[in-house]
Amino acid sequence: MTITQELAEYLVESRPADIPEDVRQEGRRALVNIVGCALGGAPEEATDIAMRTFAPFSGHANAFVVGRRERLDPLHAALINGISSHVHDYDDTLPKNYIHASSPVASALLAYAACNEVSGEDFLHAFILGFETTSRVGNATYPAHYDVGWHSTGSCGVFGAAVAIGKLLGLDVRQMVWTIGLAATQAAGIREMFGSMAKALHPGRAAQSGYEAALLARNGFTSGVEGLEGPRGFAAVLAARSDLSRVTDGLGEDFDLRVNTYKPFPCGIVNHPSIDACIQLKEENGLDSEAIKAVRLTVAPLVIDLCGKQGISTGLQGKFSVVHGAAVGLVRGRAGLDEYTDETVNDPEVKRVREATTRTGDASISEDGVHVEVELKDGKILTKALQHSLGNLERPMSDEQLSAKFRNQGVRALPADQVEQLLQACWRVDTHQRMADVIAQSVPK
Amino acid sequence: MTITQELAEYLVESRPADIPEDVRQEGRRALVNIVGCALGGAPEEATDIAMRTFAPFSGHANAFVVGRRERLDPLHAALINGISSHVHDYDDTLPKNYIHASSPVASALLAYAACNEVSGEDFLHAFILGFETTSRVGNATYPAHYDVGWHSTGSCGVFGAAVAIGKLLGLDVRQMVWTIGLAATQAAGIREMFGSMAKALHPGRAAQSGYEAALLARNGFTSGVEGLEGPRGFAAVLAARSDLSRVTDGLGEDFDLRVNTYKPFPCGIVNHPSIDACIQLKEENGLDSEAIKAVRLTVAPLVIDLCGKQGISTGLQGKFSVVHGAAVGLVRGRAGLDEYTDETVNDPEVKRVREATTRTGDASISEDGVHVEVELKDGKILTKALQHSLGNLERPMSDEQLSAKFRNQGVRALPADQVEQLLQACWRVDTHQRMADVIAQSVPK
Repeated sequence: MTITQELAEYLVESRPADIPEDVRQEGRRALVNIVGCALGGAPEEATDIAMRTFAPFSGHANAFVVGRRERLDPLHAALINGISSHVHDYDDTLPKNYIHASSPVASALLAYAACNEVSGEDFLHAFILGFETTSRVGNATYPAHYDVGWHSTGSCGVFGAAVAIGKLLGLDVRQMVWTIGLAATQAAGIREMFGSMAKALHPGRAAQSGYEAALLARNGFTSGVEGLEGPRGFAAVLAARSDLSRVTDGLGEDFDLRVNTYKPFPCGIVNHPSIDACIQLKEENGLDSEAIKAVRLTVAPLVIDLCGKQGISTGLQGKFSVVHGAAVGLVRGRAGLDEYTDETVNDPEVKRVREATTRTGDASISEDGVHVEVELKDGKILTKALQHSLGNLERPMSDEQLSAKFRNQGVRALPADQVEQLLQACWRVDTHQRMADVIAQSVPK
Repeated sequence: MTITQELAEYLVESRPADIPEDVRQEGRRALVNIVGCALGGAPEEATDIAMRTFAPFSGHANAFVVGRRERLDPLHAALINGISSHVHDYDDTLPKNYIHASSPVASALLAYAACNEVSGEDFLHAFILGFETTSRVGNATYPAHYDVGWHSTGSCGVFGAAVAIGKLLGLDVRQMVWTIGLAATQAAGIREMFGSMAKALHPGRAAQSGYEAALLARNGFTSGVEGLEGPRGFAAVLAARSDLSRVTDGLGEDFDLRVNTYKPFPCGIVNHPSIDACIQLKEENGLDSEAIKAVRLTVAPLVIDLCGKQGISTGLQGKFSVVHGAAVGLVRGRAGLDEYTDETVNDPEVKRVREATTRTGDASISEDGVHVEVELKDGKILTKALQHSLGNLERPMSDEQLSAKFRNQGVRALPADQVEQLLQACWRVDTHQRMADVIAQSVPK
């Protein structure tokens, strides 16, 4: 049996009761986090522009869009949800393959469930299957696929969105094989877009393309049947090296939701150790940033590859700039959404400290760690070394911290009492008869 | 100046009068051919399924779809036009990079012009710019991009569709740079889909994604500014080797429309020499296929890579089977749309001759040539060697042959008199005040 066939059979046959309770709980945590991110990103400029661009082309507008007043047809709603939930780079991350798996999958599901009859139980189940599919395709092609420059949140996320919608549509195995093939041939999204609005388009496009793949397959639109493993299939074309056994090994037993992480800071995750260390260093020393002469970061080489931007001028660029993260940590003692605005990036003191900050790659430093050295104007040297930053697998965010993050983002789109109701509804996702009622609560009144 | 910037400046500054008349004429020929192909593919099953799938999600349905009664919003119309115009594999081909450039570009433009004010002059100009952009991106990344398994009609076609729509929208250089970036990050389509309906999805998706890229860029949705040449840009990610100077060298002077070719047979172009030789061999010898014992094709190795399918059972698979092409040439003396149906592929005599046909790759045979050896049951051997088949650059189809091909396909969708009117209107494309009036003639009454 081929890999594509085996995956399709598993997806078609899986039942909600087959998912272990610890995985379901991690699914609830992922959902809380991603809905919060969509609320936080709903009023952003990139989301606004996309809404303004596509609303005139919307079909029958029966789908709620998370955090927005406008309704759209569900395919466009999936696109907008994907942009809003990723635009702050605040969504979840799988450290093993750097994929933000919830955004493409949940964005499609939230759009579908907003205008179709879906129970919370089926919603959570489809979400978990889509999440796992995305991560498994990522595992099979990591690191070659990512290293060459694919933004795998888009290029692998399309598989997860496709099979999640395919599961809710009740596809048979043959249709699910086509769904996977139609996802494979729409896989897209390159890392050159990092630091621009187009990065957030990737999970949006993946959500929409995946959704469409499942609809086409249901209606008998055929694809190649070896979308993953064929000689011109996804792995062969989009990854110089791959191990497709990782798509199917341990299916139904090993779940990557168990190794998913949530960000305390809305920026590239490899910046987190530097930010965390700088905040701690500021707090421990009662440091006033004006005393700073120079900052030297020693980081894993990947940090510079992913987030080496210097000479930046926009909030979006700041998300991919480890020196900006260090600067706001030292100047403000925090790195929330307000620290990634154009205004903050151009704040004179933030800019001064950022430009006084150098970063050096050192292969002996892990991607979770950092060594920070701050030289003061009086000649004194302060240092801080960190092995693990908040939010990583060794220091996971608690349910309470995820709720606090949800509330902080939620109030950008909704009144506080509505935020609270929606938050509680997300924690109880699998108890709802009709997910559309929950999603309706995400709309500003 | 970067490649992306230079290309964008050229596209923004180009005026219709800058295009040499011989290129304009080749543009008219390409348009006649692709509109004919869209008519021929309009009633096909793949087109039907896509229409049935997306019509319920259509926005304001103000765009005509070539050869169909239904109207759609223009974004979905672009998608359907792309499927119908490529589904028979009967559209044009650039021998230098194997791209079918007209389908993605014209599909987007026909949808846009169906519901916006566009003159024929501007339409033809935008079409030529889009065609050239697609081919130039293809040249810059050929052969590595194609060889690894990209279906460059989709993955390069998205650039052409994007800039063609961007030209009609009157974008400035900055917006055109974003349009190119947003195209780059939506580039998709893998060759594993050859022989399935998903192949025809590629130019459709490229047309729609490109159209959307231009709309987003107009509204200020930003992308990376080095979409083509950046370290994680299109060329670096989607091609192991590239020469991006080929995107911009000779811009405005060298036009690949001059080296575009049109297919006399609705299948993979590398099959054409074998089909042509077999038809000639049958005619020259008055051959009855029942006399055939075995057929031996000696072809360029690429033919087997692209069209080596054996043991086939569907018409779509037949398009990628050089042995099927040879068989219908020998059995029926022709290879029109009727020779690529499921019925013909399963015709006992066609199947017998096909299964008696072997193909051998030989690097000394050019991709335009073939050596055919037919062994008869009585022991006699017939041979035919061909250097160039009809439709290639040395034996181009005449305007009259293109018109005949248009009529043959057109009557699948429209009454003969309407076909004739539309054909003449296409030949005079740049004389029309309003292209929507022309496109309206493509709709069955």
